[in-house]
Amino acid sequence: MLERIRIVLIGTSHPGNIGGVARAMHNMGLADLALVAPRCEVIAQDSISRASGADHLLHQVSLHATLEEAVADCTLAVGASARSRTLPWPMLSPRELADRLPAECQPEGCRVALVFGREDSGLTNAELQRCHAHVHIPTNADFSSLNLAAAVQVLAYECRMAWLSQADAPAAVASDDGELATHAELERYFEHLERTLIGIDFHDPDQPRQLMARLRRLYLRARPERMEMNILRGILSATEKAANTKPPKP
Amino acid sequence: MLERIRIVLIGTSHPGNIGGVARAMHNMGLADLALVAPRCEVIAQDSISRASGADHLLHQVSLHATLEEAVADCTLAVGASARSRTLPWPMLSPRELADRLPAECQPEGCRVALVFGREDSGLTNAELQRCHAHVHIPTNADFSSLNLAAAVQVLAYECRMAWLSQADAPAAVASDDGELATHAELERYFEHLERTLIGIDFHDPDQPRQLMARLRRLYLRARPERMEMNILRGILSATEKAANTKPPKP
Repeated sequence: MLERIRIVLIGTSHPGNIGGVARAMHNMGLADLALVAPRCEVIAQDSISRASGADHLLHQVSLHATLEEAVADCTLAVGASARSRTLPWPMLSPRELADRLPAECQPEGCRVALVFGREDSGLTNAELQRCHAHVHIPTNADFSSLNLAAAVQVLAYECRMAWLSQADAPAAVASDDGELATHAELERYFEHLERTLIGIDFHDPDQPRQLMARLRRLYLRARPERMEMNILRGILSATEKAANTKPPKP
Repeated sequence: MLERIRIVLIGTSHPGNIGGVARAMHNMGLADLALVAPRCEVIAQDSISRASGADHLLHQVSLHATLEEAVADCTLAVGASARSRTLPWPMLSPRELADRLPAECQPEGCRVALVFGREDSGLTNAELQRCHAHVHIPTNADFSSLNLAAAVQVLAYECRMAWLSQADAPAAVASDDGELATHAELERYFEHLERTLIGIDFHDPDQPRQLMARLRRLYLRARPERMEMNILRGILSATEKAANTKPPKP
């Protein structure tokens, strides 16, 4: 289970924090670290020193230009969020997340991403809206900003506790649910959907009024299977064709 | 409840770790930080920087020469331990500890100490044997040494989760148990006990064979009340008197 959990850090500024994250991950048995557009060196004196023996994780990180790329193969993406946002999103406590992990990590080919934002400003609304759910680590209301490595430590600890409880539990009955759509498939759908909605004059990107955010929330909450995604894509294509909005092939 | 929980650090070497601990504590709503014989400056550039806004905790730490002094008024002391020791001790997971905290923190005058050892070598056997129980944070067997601030972060997080669940729960029925003995009262008892056992030739400090450790474990597990402690002390005094081992008053 733990090998199917990826820690994604976006725009990290301090090598020491990347090292601290590597140490926290290795301590708890996680190994898949993805960095999106880091704003500092990954292999540096501070990161190696704070990794304190877990620096092999620093050498095997995957580097990505965008969050979409980092979580393209993921079947569940959960964003760490300190704040409640203008548009409420499904919100989990770390323990509720942990309770879901054994089932989320079971199907063949599944991948779970836990996404952490910048030290100074966290995740943007656009990044948070690319996640199926948000996880909020309960903190002192007067002092809520956790150190990045500390936040990863808490969630990685909950991952390990979930894994240990699963090891004790009887094997789960195999699910006969279909395969879940990956993040990349969902994103292709959302692009197609927006294009279609613009094409049919339902959606004005200059006056978005959170339309796409609300649709994202709806579909992400539904956790569509690949087969369902194909159906939804088929509906969009049919819509475009019917509305004659699709640019003609050259 | 959280104001009754003390974090005790023994022999810390790095100011940055003390700062990281202060930040982790303040994030989770803990404020009582006790340092035993720190091997570094408490107020230093590294500690203030890692505290990241929680440096008021650094200015209000209590400094102690010994663990006994730091936990003298505590009714429960729990030592963080990575290893199983030669003499097994009551061992809790962080969650089991959290489950006990609301009840432990309820009686008037109670205090709970969570005790953390040196960065390089943890707690000594003598220090561990001064604790009622040990808490082990589950870690990767190949890489079990947690950063000090990370270990405090995990336990402080469990404290906060316990506090939050208590806030949700109906008020507990007041216990009619007697007041628990403090750590200092227990230590006075153990001193008296050892003196008495030596006096009656039952115990040879040059060949201790873990006798006192086993007795400590027994009594600490029993969580004596103050009244019971008085009775036990009375028995020792009576023993000394009967065996005529007490040095005559000058």
